[in-house]
Amino acid sequence: MKNNNKSKNKNRNIKIELEYDGTNYNGFQKQPNQKTIQGEIEKAIEKVFGENISINGAGRTDAGVHALGQVCNFNISSDIKAENITMALNTILPGDIVIKTAEDVNEKFHARKSAKQKQYKYVINNNKVRSAINRKREVWYKYNIDIDIMKEASKLLIGKHDYRAFMSSGSSIKDTVRTIKEIEIEKCGGIITINITGDGFLYNMVRIIAGTLIEIASAKRKIEDISKAFETKERTFSGKTMPPQGLYLVKIWY
Amino acid sequence: MKNNNKSKNKNRNIKIELEYDGTNYNGFQKQPNQKTIQGEIEKAIEKVFGENISINGAGRTDAGVHALGQVCNFNISSDIKAENITMALNTILPGDIVIKTAEDVNEKFHARKSAKQKQYKYVINNNKVRSAINRKREVWYKYNIDIDIMKEASKLLIGKHDYRAFMSSGSSIKDTVRTIKEIEIEKCGGIITINITGDGFLYNMVRIIAGTLIEIASAKRKIEDISKAFETKERTFSGKTMPPQGLYLVKIWY
Repeated sequence: MKNNNKSKNKNRNIKIELEYDGTNYNGFQKQPNQKTIQGEIEKAIEKVFGENISINGAGRTDAGVHALGQVCNFNISSDIKAENITMALNTILPGDIVIKTAEDVNEKFHARKSAKQKQYKYVINNNKVRSAINRKREVWYKYNIDIDIMKEASKLLIGKHDYRAFMSSGSSIKDTVRTIKEIEIEKCGGIITINITGDGFLYNMVRIIAGTLIEIASAKRKIEDISKAFETKERTFSGKTMPPQGLYLVKIWY
Repeated sequence: MKNNNKSKNKNRNIKIELEYDGTNYNGFQKQPNQKTIQGEIEKAIEKVFGENISINGAGRTDAGVHALGQVCNFNISSDIKAENITMALNTILPGDIVIKTAEDVNEKFHARKSAKQKQYKYVINNNKVRSAINRKREVWYKYNIDIDIMKEASKLLIGKHDYRAFMSSGSSIKDTVRTIKEIEIEKCGGIITINITGDGFLYNMVRIIAGTLIEIASAKRKIEDISKAFETKERTFSGKTMPPQGLYLVKIWY
């Protein structure tokens, strides 16, 4: 890589959009002695640019969770053209992580802090028989799901609410008020997809919402539990945390 | 399992339809000290029925090749109801193999010999950037593919022909005349799917046909090579054997 005086300061801020298969990773966030998405990307950046840096990710996806449009940013000094960063990193990265786009952005841009809105999807295989080919990219749920009831229940979750009851314990976060803008539910060939768009999500919130909607739509929980969950903020009124392999981080808006 | 006098003869012929992800297998056909689809199914049958038998598969898919509708048959003496065989085997089978249906069939039924027609599909990701999530279920080909030229070339392959030029060397088969009934090509979101239906296929024939169509449609080979391949029966006039992970055995007709 070319190295001139100007490039000695890490004065470029690069935004990348990426897709990954979370199956073989211990989540996005770097951890000592663990294989993580962040760790693999930072290793690739070091190999390509010779710069040992730390990247910011928009969403800290858990082990087994996938991303179609995760966004990260990082500061580098290299003067490589933005359009060549994609190819350079993809040559080094393992097959289950891929950079889709790379661009120079304003120095104030921060992948997580600047995010205005995020979309996740949760994929449920509601066929009688599990799928062999998609087993790591969906969750099999064989009991009957009434899609109309699921849609009706999803409407009660939309808006600005305190979603504390839809958060896994262990999170130290104080402000649990979030706004869910839209929940779109589709069924095609026995595959149910729940698309959720909001300004931000608490720990495991999408997986707990998926669990709540599934339980209500399969008559294992009452639809009234949603308003009780908002009122009491108690975890007992929301559904179980669905497994990670059905979850995808789809898109981030800035 | 119940065991009466009648059931001591292996007098039932069971037909199963199955889906599998071929990624982690050394192909369908059983081989000593290799992990194969046939081997896993026979192990599951032995565990469930206590009968050490050999199954017949309709198509001997290679390592890495997937199946959505492989068909097998086997003889057992157990009097378990056909509708319970599916669940019993699926409980034992690994996640990447699944039995979709099981039924009693006539004693003369043989999954391979009775097959009248088969359908395979080959999936090509023709986007600029490879996919992380689907990397084991498609082949990435980044050069421009002209779908109209591909469709035009595919028409020349249809009919009853000697497909010797579209067979990998190493096959000892004598009669290389086959009939391709239909080739259907679709493009959706940058993903090209070639569906091929025929009365039977030679070794690697679908992967070589996919390679031939891709080369012609990306201007790396002339469309005239197809008629030359039929005339000369020489492998040099057909395209390269595409990788296994893009291939799926879709359906068998009886």
